[in-house]
Amino acid sequence: MLGVICTAQQSKPMQPLPPPRPVPLVSPEVHADGSVTFRFRAPNAVDVKLALEGADPASMQKDDRGVWTMTTAPLAPDYYGYDFVADGVRLIDPENPLLKPNLLETQSQVHVPGPSALPWELNDVPHGVVHHHFYRSAVAGDDRDYYVYTPPGYDPASKEPYPVLYLLHGFGDDASGWTAVGRANVILDNLIARGQAKSMIVVMPLGYGAMEFVRLGWEAWTHAEMRDRNFENFREILLNEVMPQVEGQYRIKKDRNARAIGGLSMGGSESLLTGLNNLDKFSWIGAFSSGGIPEDFQKDFPTLDAKANQQLHLLWIACGTGDQLITLNRSLRQWLKAKGVKATETEIPGMHTWMVWRRNLAEFAPLLFR
Amino acid sequence: MLGVICTAQQSKPMQPLPPPRPVPLVSPEVHADGSVTFRFRAPNAVDVKLALEGADPASMQKDDRGVWTMTTAPLAPDYYGYDFVADGVRLIDPENPLLKPNLLETQSQVHVPGPSALPWELNDVPHGVVHHHFYRSAVAGDDRDYYVYTPPGYDPASKEPYPVLYLLHGFGDDASGWTAVGRANVILDNLIARGQAKSMIVVMPLGYGAMEFVRLGWEAWTHAEMRDRNFENFREILLNEVMPQVEGQYRIKKDRNARAIGGLSMGGSESLLTGLNNLDKFSWIGAFSSGGIPEDFQKDFPTLDAKANQQLHLLWIACGTGDQLITLNRSLRQWLKAKGVKATETEIPGMHTWMVWRRNLAEFAPLLFR
Repeated sequence: MLGVICTAQQSKPMQPLPPPRPVPLVSPEVHADGSVTFRFRAPNAVDVKLALEGADPASMQKDDRGVWTMTTAPLAPDYYGYDFVADGVRLIDPENPLLKPNLLETQSQVHVPGPSALPWELNDVPHGVVHHHFYRSAVAGDDRDYYVYTPPGYDPASKEPYPVLYLLHGFGDDASGWTAVGRANVILDNLIARGQAKSMIVVMPLGYGAMEFVRLGWEAWTHAEMRDRNFENFREILLNEVMPQVEGQYRIKKDRNARAIGGLSMGGSESLLTGLNNLDKFSWIGAFSSGGIPEDFQKDFPTLDAKANQQLHLLWIACGTGDQLITLNRSLRQWLKAKGVKATETEIPGMHTWMVWRRNLAEFAPLLFR
Repeated sequence: MLGVICTAQQSKPMQPLPPPRPVPLVSPEVHADGSVTFRFRAPNAVDVKLALEGADPASMQKDDRGVWTMTTAPLAPDYYGYDFVADGVRLIDPENPLLKPNLLETQSQVHVPGPSALPWELNDVPHGVVHHHFYRSAVAGDDRDYYVYTPPGYDPASKEPYPVLYLLHGFGDDASGWTAVGRANVILDNLIARGQAKSMIVVMPLGYGAMEFVRLGWEAWTHAEMRDRNFENFREILLNEVMPQVEGQYRIKKDRNARAIGGLSMGGSESLLTGLNNLDKFSWIGAFSSGGIPEDFQKDFPTLDAKANQQLHLLWIACGTGDQLITLNRSLRQWLKAKGVKATETEIPGMHTWMVWRRNLAEFAPLLFR
């Protein structure tokens, strides 16, 4: 006798839980040509839009069962964040377990698969390990976390220590952003397997100097003092808490020539503020779509001048051409030029999206530690 | 000049993204007495219920702004999964970044804080590390993952290797279930800090022998052959893929006396099926609210008899008294008794919920490796 199925006929229901939904929908449904059909049941909603990363919100159509549907044009292979905006309320796709975690707005993700050559595609190559660390921060006065990627074959007793990249997320993300959304571990696995990047350790800390900064939401940026304190405290946390911990626990070179810092959006600004003001500690710096810093660059980088060229192996400044922040990034590059500080400038098509930042990482990581 | 704020007056909008929502709600709001107010904006929904873990769905009340609200009675300190059922559709709380990941139904979680003595409360004690591993499974033919908890102060070069607990999740969960929802790492940190549990390694694999089993949803359990294949393949994956990998990468005792297996619901059954049928490998076995196995115990455990008592250090069978599966678990214990196999029986109040399983782990782990 089987005791598994919970039906009305059975006297002893043995299924762990009752079935949650009557007729599950398929969403998202990715078609062979890369177009995607999204479905969302909301029988009484008046207006439902699909908000897809990198695109304007698009109206969905309702059928007589109360299911709203939209099929996109063929999408380029990538991972796309999305949600449904039902009568103004942003909601994840309840049929899709693939989430895009974020402290301000949880979304869903859809994978439009592409050739294995794309750096974020999971391939049958040796994989690194992602380590999740927890500690009490004296600076922030809270319990927080960071992630550490160790490359395939990482050997804690290796004769040669590993170089390290500190990789910083954007505003709203949590410390899991670069792995859960940015696929940094997959990208590094692929680059290392192809011999395109050096075997390196990647440290992904929580990027806030104070959690109240992100709890305030986007309004936080209107509070200049709080913003500056957030940047300042983050720098202290990175240099005095996270860095000593990871250097104590992993086989890492404690040498500015083997230490890089890079990040996206707020994390790009943190990379510039922390990196360019601490050239004794960092010699490889990357800023992807950086934003949120005061535009008074002289105040941001008071001691920076052409002497930095001798210390910097790489100052890499990237932005999508469709990103509002392109203006800020171009201004910064002009200012650096006027100062005589050499920077590598990279502009690719794209908005303020992870599609740009995954490509940035795939281009930036191979340049490091050469 | 500051370039941060995106307002209509500014010519150069520098904020990374426009503000997503007009007036954010506060949800969940946990009050001092442990009651919780939930809020959800759904202006056109006809019926919205709160589905809180361990409770019957409760109707929410709509105000004139289209916000549905409900305040619970004071809740016992714990973590509770929940979602909103809006016109029959289960949705997470869009205001709450704390998720309860699940392959069948993503939910939100709310923390009702309690005394630091509660095993799942984060305390200022040394923390272990949670390692996320990825590999290609030859048995399942897919790419999958597992998590490994190493205790505080874990030393890969330790003279004395560590004992290991294989800890299995339930149907619908993914490999992150025991950490993201079960708080296994926090529970172990606390128990170890108090000297109540031995310093041990905990391995948390993906618990499916075949992913199509969970993709089918709850209906999967009606396919007996598929279910049996799922259990069978899982056993093979655990013994021949996960176990050799972790034993190769961590400082683990390769000894049945230092190897435990335990799990919840489907994972409880997997612990019994894999553990009791492989007493040469496991000597500590725990089943929390186990379910989903055929009730023909003679067929499930064909060679089990009283001789097992010499090999088993612990066979621990737990279930909540409010769980449907209590009948199956009592039957199993009767059958074991008739066979002369000693088991420790634990029944605590509670349904088929994580509130029970966190307590189970906190009670089971201290018994191990004594």
